[in-house]
Amino acid sequence: MPHVIGELLAGVILGPSLLGLINPLTELEVLATIGVIFFMLSAGFEIDLKKLMRTFKEGLIVASMGVLLPFTLGMILGHKYSMNFTQSFALATCLSITAIGLSVRVFMDLGMLTSRVGLTVVNAAVDDDVIGLILMSVAFTLISEEKGLHDVVITSISSSAFLIAGFMLGVVIASNAKLRGLIRSFFLRSVKSLPLRLTLIIAIAFLFGYLAKLSGLHEIIGVFIAGIILNMLVGAEERAEREIIDFTFAFFALLFFAYMGVKTDLRTLQNITWFTIELVGIAFIGKFLGGLIGSIIAKLSLREAIVVGIAMNSRAAVELVIANAFYSLGIFSKEVLTALVIMASITSLTTPVLLRVSIGRVGGDIHKSL
Amino acid sequence: MPHVIGELLAGVILGPSLLGLINPLTELEVLATIGVIFFMLSAGFEIDLKKLMRTFKEGLIVASMGVLLPFTLGMILGHKYSMNFTQSFALATCLSITAIGLSVRVFMDLGMLTSRVGLTVVNAAVDDDVIGLILMSVAFTLISEEKGLHDVVITSISSSAFLIAGFMLGVVIASNAKLRGLIRSFFLRSVKSLPLRLTLIIAIAFLFGYLAKLSGLHEIIGVFIAGIILNMLVGAEERAEREIIDFTFAFFALLFFAYMGVKTDLRTLQNITWFTIELVGIAFIGKFLGGLIGSIIAKLSLREAIVVGIAMNSRAAVELVIANAFYSLGIFSKEVLTALVIMASITSLTTPVLLRVSIGRVGGDIHKSL
Repeated sequence: MPHVIGELLAGVILGPSLLGLINPLTELEVLATIGVIFFMLSAGFEIDLKKLMRTFKEGLIVASMGVLLPFTLGMILGHKYSMNFTQSFALATCLSITAIGLSVRVFMDLGMLTSRVGLTVVNAAVDDDVIGLILMSVAFTLISEEKGLHDVVITSISSSAFLIAGFMLGVVIASNAKLRGLIRSFFLRSVKSLPLRLTLIIAIAFLFGYLAKLSGLHEIIGVFIAGIILNMLVGAEERAEREIIDFTFAFFALLFFAYMGVKTDLRTLQNITWFTIELVGIAFIGKFLGGLIGSIIAKLSLREAIVVGIAMNSRAAVELVIANAFYSLGIFSKEVLTALVIMASITSLTTPVLLRVSIGRVGGDIHKSL
Repeated sequence: MPHVIGELLAGVILGPSLLGLINPLTELEVLATIGVIFFMLSAGFEIDLKKLMRTFKEGLIVASMGVLLPFTLGMILGHKYSMNFTQSFALATCLSITAIGLSVRVFMDLGMLTSRVGLTVVNAAVDDDVIGLILMSVAFTLISEEKGLHDVVITSISSSAFLIAGFMLGVVIASNAKLRGLIRSFFLRSVKSLPLRLTLIIAIAFLFGYLAKLSGLHEIIGVFIAGIILNMLVGAEERAEREIIDFTFAFFALLFFAYMGVKTDLRTLQNITWFTIELVGIAFIGKFLGGLIGSIIAKLSLREAIVVGIAMNSRAAVELVIANAFYSLGIFSKEVLTALVIMASITSLTTPVLLRVSIGRVGGDIHKSL
C-alpha cells in the first residue's frame, strides 16, 4: 500500500481531537502549505521534461475530456435543482478541478511517476489547473459583470505566458548539454557547502512558485516546473536534491497529506442529502468517464485509460478555495458548500485506495517507465 | 564571519517591509517556531554527553553568577526608578534569562561547540533555563499570592525531574555499549527506508520537546536532550542525522534566525529613554561580569572567561514572552516593556558579532575540542 494512505488515515483519525485545539491546527496548516510546495518540488525532481513532453497531447486530451464531462453534468445537476445559470456554472467549475497532489503522490509511492500513465496524469493535471483557472475567471465575470471579459483574457494570457516561458526555459536547458554543464559546474564550484546548495535550490523553487501565483496559477505548478528545470541542472546524482526529497517525504509531505486527512471531518457526513449523493455520483462518473474516454481518444490502452480515469478523480485544495469564495459571495448556499466539501473529502480519500487497487488489478506493463 | 550574522541582518533589513504583510509573518513565525526545534535537535546531535558532563560544574557556576549579578543590578535599577518589590523582581527576572540559541549557533558556525567554552555555555544555558523558570514562578507567586509557594515547588520539581530523567537515560545509554548496539541494529533492521528513519527521529525529538514543555521547561531543552541521546543511538555516521542537520541549516535555522532579525524592529529605537540606556547597560555589564567571574571561579582561563561572558549576553524568546506576560498582568508599563524589547534586540544582535570578534582576538587554544 502507498504510504500516503496511512498518512491520510492518521489525519482522519487524529482530526477531530486536533480540531478542538486551534493553535496546533494553524501551525499544521502553515506546515501543510509549505509541505505541498516541497512535495511538488520533489515531484518535479523526478520528472524528465523530454519524457513529459511525449505525453503532452495525451494530457491535453485527457484534461479537456476530464473537464467537459463533469462540467456538463454539473450544469445539468444545477438546472435540476433550479439553480440559475451563474450558480450552475460555479457548481460545474468546482466539479471540474482535479487536485494534482494525491495522484502524483500515489504514483511516486508506487514508482510509477515516469510511466505513460503517470506522465499523462501529470500533464493533464497541469492543463487542468489552467482550464480551471479560466473557468473560475469566467464564473467571477458572470457574478460581477463590471470586470467582464477583460479579466478572463488577462488571466488566460498571464497563466499561459508563465507556462510557455517555463516550458521554453526548460527546452533550452534540456536541448543544450553544454549550457547545462556550464551552469552545473558553476553551481558546484561557487556553492561549496551542502546546506547552502539546499538553500539556493529551495529559494529558486519558491521564486518560481511566487511567479506562478502572480500569473494566476496555483503556486505548486510553478514549484513543480522549478523542480523539473533544477533537476536538469543540478542532476539526480547531486546529493542536495536527494536530501530535499528525503526530508520532504519524512516531514513535509507527511504533514501535508495528514492535514488533508485532518480537514476531512467525517462528522460532516451527517449532513448528507440527496443533492450530496447526486453530486458525489456525477463527480465520480464525470471525472472517471472523462479521463477514460480522453485516454482512449489519445490512444492509451484500456488498462491505462482506467487508471487515468481513477487518478483524475481527487478534488481538494483549489476546489475548496473556489467553493468557499462562491459561498462568501452568496452564490452558494451553506448546503451546496457542505455538499462540495463532502464531495472533495470522499473523492480525495478514495482516490489513493482505488488507484492502488486498479493498478494492482489491471497489471501488465503499465508500470513501465517511458 | 558566522552565517548567522547574515541571517539576522537579512531579517532586520527585510523586517519592516514584511511587518506590513501580516500573513507571511504568521507563516514565518510558525516556521521559526519549528525552526528552533530542528536547530536544537541538530545542536544536540553534535554534543557528546560525556564531554558535556565534564563541564557540568563550570556551567552551574557560570549560570549562577550569570543570574546573580544581572538580577541584583535589576533589583537596584527597579528601586532607583521607584518600582515596588514585585515590579523590581519581575524586571530583574527578565534581565537574568539567557537565550541559548544564538551563542550555540555561533559556536556551531565556528566549529567550537565541543570546546570547553562551548560546552560550558551549553551547560550554563540549560541551567539558566531552570533558574529562570524558578524565578518566573516566584514572580508570578508575588503577583497572585493565592497560588503561592506551592507552584514554585511544583515547577522546580517537575523541571528538575525532567532534566534528571533525561540525564539518567543518557547516562544509561552512554555507559552501555551493548545496549546502544542492540537499539542501533534493531533500528537499522526494522526501519529500512531513509525517510522513515528521519520521520522516526523527528517524532522522538518532538515527543521530548512536548515532555519538557509539560514539565515547565522550554520545549527546545527537551529536543536538545533528545538530540544528544539519539546521536548516541543512531550515531554520527548514520545518514539520517546528517540529512536533518543539512536541511535544518539550509531552511529551518535560517528562517529562525532571520525571524529574530525581523522581530528586531529598529524603529523602536526611537523610543529610547534614560531608563532604556541604563537597562541595556546593566544587561551587558551584569551578564558579562557574571559569566566572566563565574568562569574564573570555575577555573577557566581568562581568555575563555571573556568569551563565556560575552556568549551569555543574548536575551530573546523566553525573556520576551515573560516580559509580555508581566505587561499584560499590569506589572510593567508600556515604557518598561518597550525598554525590555530594545534590550533583547540589542543584546541579541550584538552577541554574534562580539562573540566572533572576541574569539578572534583572544585566540590561543580555546578552539580545541574537549
